[in-house]
Amino acid sequence: MTAFAFRITHTDGDARCGVLSTPHGDVQTPAFMPVGTHGAVKGVTGRDLESLGAEILLSNTYHLYLRPGDGLIARRGGLHRFMHWNKPILTDSGGYQVFSLSERRTINEEGARFRSHLDGSAHLLTPEKAADIQAQLGSDISMVLDECLAHPDDPRAARESMERTLRWAARARQRFLAIAEGGVPDVVVTNPGQAQFGIVQGSVFKDLRVESARRTVEVGFESYAIGGLSVGEPAHVMYEVVGHTTPHLPADRPRYLMGTGTPEDLVESVARGVDLFDCVLPTRNARNGQLFTSEGRINIKNARYAEDDGPLDPACSCYTCRTYSRAYLRHLFAAGEIGASTLNTLHNLHFYLDTLRRIREAIVFGRFESFRVGYVGRRQ
Amino acid sequence: MTAFAFRITHTDGDARCGVLSTPHGDVQTPAFMPVGTHGAVKGVTGRDLESLGAEILLSNTYHLYLRPGDGLIARRGGLHRFMHWNKPILTDSGGYQVFSLSERRTINEEGARFRSHLDGSAHLLTPEKAADIQAQLGSDISMVLDECLAHPDDPRAARESMERTLRWAARARQRFLAIAEGGVPDVVVTNPGQAQFGIVQGSVFKDLRVESARRTVEVGFESYAIGGLSVGEPAHVMYEVVGHTTPHLPADRPRYLMGTGTPEDLVESVARGVDLFDCVLPTRNARNGQLFTSEGRINIKNARYAEDDGPLDPACSCYTCRTYSRAYLRHLFAAGEIGASTLNTLHNLHFYLDTLRRIREAIVFGRFESFRVGYVGRRQ
Repeated sequence: MTAFAFRITHTDGDARCGVLSTPHGDVQTPAFMPVGTHGAVKGVTGRDLESLGAEILLSNTYHLYLRPGDGLIARRGGLHRFMHWNKPILTDSGGYQVFSLSERRTINEEGARFRSHLDGSAHLLTPEKAADIQAQLGSDISMVLDECLAHPDDPRAARESMERTLRWAARARQRFLAIAEGGVPDVVVTNPGQAQFGIVQGSVFKDLRVESARRTVEVGFESYAIGGLSVGEPAHVMYEVVGHTTPHLPADRPRYLMGTGTPEDLVESVARGVDLFDCVLPTRNARNGQLFTSEGRINIKNARYAEDDGPLDPACSCYTCRTYSRAYLRHLFAAGEIGASTLNTLHNLHFYLDTLRRIREAIVFGRFESFRVGYVGRRQ
Repeated sequence: MTAFAFRITHTDGDARCGVLSTPHGDVQTPAFMPVGTHGAVKGVTGRDLESLGAEILLSNTYHLYLRPGDGLIARRGGLHRFMHWNKPILTDSGGYQVFSLSERRTINEEGARFRSHLDGSAHLLTPEKAADIQAQLGSDISMVLDECLAHPDDPRAARESMERTLRWAARARQRFLAIAEGGVPDVVVTNPGQAQFGIVQGSVFKDLRVESARRTVEVGFESYAIGGLSVGEPAHVMYEVVGHTTPHLPADRPRYLMGTGTPEDLVESVARGVDLFDCVLPTRNARNGQLFTSEGRINIKNARYAEDDGPLDPACSCYTCRTYSRAYLRHLFAAGEIGASTLNTLHNLHFYLDTLRRIREAIVFGRFESFRVGYVGRRQ
């Protein structure tokens, strides 16, 4: 039914290298997905992303649903054609943005009622609706609607939320299968090979995570994500939860850790068997002048860079570092030039994508553990 | 003393094709200079500009003097090295921005006193200071400080202003020559081959323009510009003034019409013997969603483009038109995406640079007049 496949090519401890196949081509894993919220990665063009070697993007269902609308995108032939990106795309379910961006939201068993942050219009996002929208967008990987927990430190609330997420997962899967069989007449399927991922919840509670993993796998998806992390918990807690959860997810499917994180988070999570990542950190930080370098993070606004003729990162081979000085980049940032966002974003995305290339290389050559220790140690 | 040279290769009526040689390479004329106010063309990177075929940029002395400062740029080796642009650069004198942007300006014989629009700090821009700053920036072509007229319709004010501009021109030239001879110890010369252009003023008054041209040529510069136009007068008046002025400028030197204009203005001015242009129109309009196309101007915000799968301009070969639909570009603009500025700027700059390529081709093949009639006629 779908062109979705995953083949592991190398393992090193719990870390894995593989190839994720989708209707729009292959992705080498572990992989980082730049975030293209509105169907564009802020600050860079499609050819920039291709030259950076990005193999898969994430786009946001909430934003595209509200503007320009999934119907409009479906009439254009789907998101790939609309944004002219012919490689894989993963879409989230929109749930996280309903919780973090929308106004006057109320959650009940049916779904999430909310008002648009753009015009205040009323909307209802259900597990079925999230599946419908993503079918119309035609992403290669569609995510189920899950509940984002307001108080993740309360075990009772965490269980209730996990149970609801599991009930929503079953509804989302049923809808996904009905759409694929042509049983939902108003939905225009723009990518017949779309896969759907379930999401493991359970906050920081090990027993809930294990149970959520087991029961989500029972629902049965093409693969699985770990949600509800990177929400303020200490990094070591996140690593623990990831390490507890991945053994309960099928070893032959890609594991996606949602919304994470720093370069160190990526390395530590790969060490625990994660294959896919997304995060706004490299792109958002770039626009704020915060840059990731092999010598640690720098803030280009800092006056110390005003007459610094060196590159952002002497170890970096990106266009920005090959071409421009810190002094020039600081000037562009201070002057509020659009080019500052572009050049900083090119650098930060290169840094992330290059970190993943180095991770994959370390796994292939069986030296991932020494890479991890060196990588994490150097920055502290 | 300078590497500056100009060679006319073809003429067709009063229109000319030529090659302008500078210390940073050659420019085919007639040429359009994209405006890089802060040492960057808003919305695009250096490699974008190279791929567009831009051969010369204009940068603004006023902005660079205030931030990051001409001293800082001189310590970096000059503007070319600072912004990593190895082709020709022309800098304006800063006068126009003092009149249009600064606060509490007062003009007297010495120069222009003003307060920075950034921090309110007090500054004095004199003909000598403008030459000093541009020597430190190291542009290939430096412009003299001229007075921008507040009431261009008053012939008496126009004469007074023209006389002052002529006195300033003599002071500017004296300073330029002293700098070149190493006689101004505090000025770091970052481009020993810099040329200096005088500026013809005289508002819309033919006798003043002729006199200003004659007396500016008497001062003696590498070449000459026509200033004080594109300030609100009707297009046909500007064309008349240009047509009256160019015969009084040396035929063997490039003629630069400052701050102009629409594509039609460029065609009409080339027909009257102009060789160089700059204007913020293509870049500023791009950021506002106003696009130049072979079918006329369009505003990408317009709802009619929401589901338009065609390119901005079916006759255009730029990256934006080759890649993206009007529907996608409208979406990016509506969502406030940075990419809208980038893609629109790439298109508008391509449109301008391509118009100049077509102008040059028409001159070379001796069919410029039919090109002009077709070009201007089609848009009305």
